[in-house]
Amino acid sequence: MNPSPSPFAATPSPPYFAVIFTSRRTDGDQGYGGMTARMVELASRQPGFLGVESVRGTDDFGITVSYWASLESIRHWKQQEEHLAAQEKGRRVWYADYQVRVCEVLREYGTL
Amino acid sequence: MNPSPSPFAATPSPPYFAVIFTSRRTDGDQGYGGMTARMVELASRQPGFLGVESVRGTDDFGITVSYWASLESIRHWKQQEEHLAAQEKGRRVWYADYQVRVCEVLREYGTL
Repeated sequence: MNPSPSPFAATPSPPYFAVIFTSRRTDGDQGYGGMTARMVELASRQPGFLGVESVRGTDDFGITVSYWASLESIRHWKQQEEHLAAQEKGRRVWYADYQVRVCEVLREYGTL
Repeated sequence: MNPSPSPFAATPSPPYFAVIFTSRRTDGDQGYGGMTARMVELASRQPGFLGVESVRGTDDFGITVSYWASLESIRHWKQQEEHLAAQEKGRRVWYADYQVRVCEVLREYGTL
């Protein structure tokens, strides 16, 4: 494993799709850390996965953006069995509040 | 001022637009903290501004997502004079790397 992978997702030229997931954590880990690593590992094996960028601040608010080749690949990932269980536990245990926004990326620029 | 405003943006029903700004900071503040507060204040007065969500992690990687009513409002904000100066200083001083992705939000769901 790369000891310091880039936090940026190396996405292709638009158009492609993004899921912006914002959340506020409840207190305590309760298995959260292990789950996030597992979900990134699982997502990265899904068809159409293009990358993920994720930050959690010291105030328990976090933003994770995952990038996908199509809306179909997003739907497919949302229905993945182990991911469904994580979503259910997320609603019940890990997240005080969360919001999911499904987007089409129209253009991009920067230093990448 | 509300002593603990929600970190979530209270966006309307889609469609609307989002700008995902991911960045890695250089070392030292160099006026960065004051600028970010000022840019949020300025952006919130722009026509079409719907909200902003922002997190920076302990590893200097950050994600800021701003939400807008139209692509025109995004273009307008990108050309705002004080924002142009901040963009220039961002490229020169504050950011080691950054990426901007302009998106259309197609649907949203969650606890908000």
